[in-house]
Amino acid sequence: MICEYCDNVGYGRLISERSYWTIHLAPSQRYLGTCVVAIKRQCSNLSELETEEWTEFTEIVREIEKTINHIFKPTLFNWSCFKNASYRSKDPHPKVHWHLIPRYDSLKFFDGIKFEDLDFGYIPQPISREISEDVMESMRIKIEKQLTNSKI
Amino acid sequence: MICEYCDNVGYGRLISERSYWTIHLAPSQRYLGTCVVAIKRQCSNLSELETEEWTEFTEIVREIEKTINHIFKPTLFNWSCFKNASYRSKDPHPKVHWHLIPRYDSLKFFDGIKFEDLDFGYIPQPISREISEDVMESMRIKIEKQLTNSKI
Repeated sequence: MICEYCDNVGYGRLISERSYWTIHLAPSQRYLGTCVVAIKRQCSNLSELETEEWTEFTEIVREIEKTINHIFKPTLFNWSCFKNASYRSKDPHPKVHWHLIPRYDSLKFFDGIKFEDLDFGYIPQPISREISEDVMESMRIKIEKQLTNSKI
Repeated sequence: MICEYCDNVGYGRLISERSYWTIHLAPSQRYLGTCVVAIKRQCSNLSELETEEWTEFTEIVREIEKTINHIFKPTLFNWSCFKNASYRSKDPHPKVHWHLIPRYDSLKFFDGIKFEDLDFGYIPQPISREISEDVMESMRIKIEKQLTNSKI
């Protein structure tokens, strides 16, 4: 397991690939619009990131928050870099990746599906909520398009 | 409440003040060596951080991970910027601050006190563990001294 907020297969659907990072739509959409920003090389700790990797990450933070704000209008964003679940393995290979988890103080709908942030005001729970392939792809495309408009 | 990983009074004991950020020993030591890195100005979202604030933050990440590695030898680090608890208020004033939560796959002792990471491999729980004033101050001083040696 790479991460308890992700799943066993990977970070999710690819939205954008940059020089040092990839941006994905996370497999679990318990929190509408949850994305993953993952480093492309093997790197276990934030302190090992190079200056240019940090710089690109900060650009991505600005672009993806702007994008998610435009599409979903969340109340706030949670960001985390945890890597815990990889340590359940006897031979862990943790890899730096961030979870961008938008949080909502009210009900939201996407493609007619209801999203309710049952944990608002509290830490995000690693409880998976999968939605249909069609809706995931529709969401991925919407974020991809808006992200292009939000590029610095 | 400023944050469910902090408490009602603040970020904890001041370890170091920089141009844009302060570094604190967190009030809860459920995870030995837990620190808070907080922005000094009002800033609600990571996307609002200025380039020089990001740059100083990345320097702090390198220095504090090196410091905590030297003193406590954790297995890994969890980093998060959540701000959830401030939204339990009707008039929230979230402020960007990071939790650096060292995680341990084995028992640790500090000043004769036992620390066991009961949640290893899983997300950190916002369950407070307070230790005595004396031990907190001893830990703060140790981190402060080592941080000076770890400065870039």
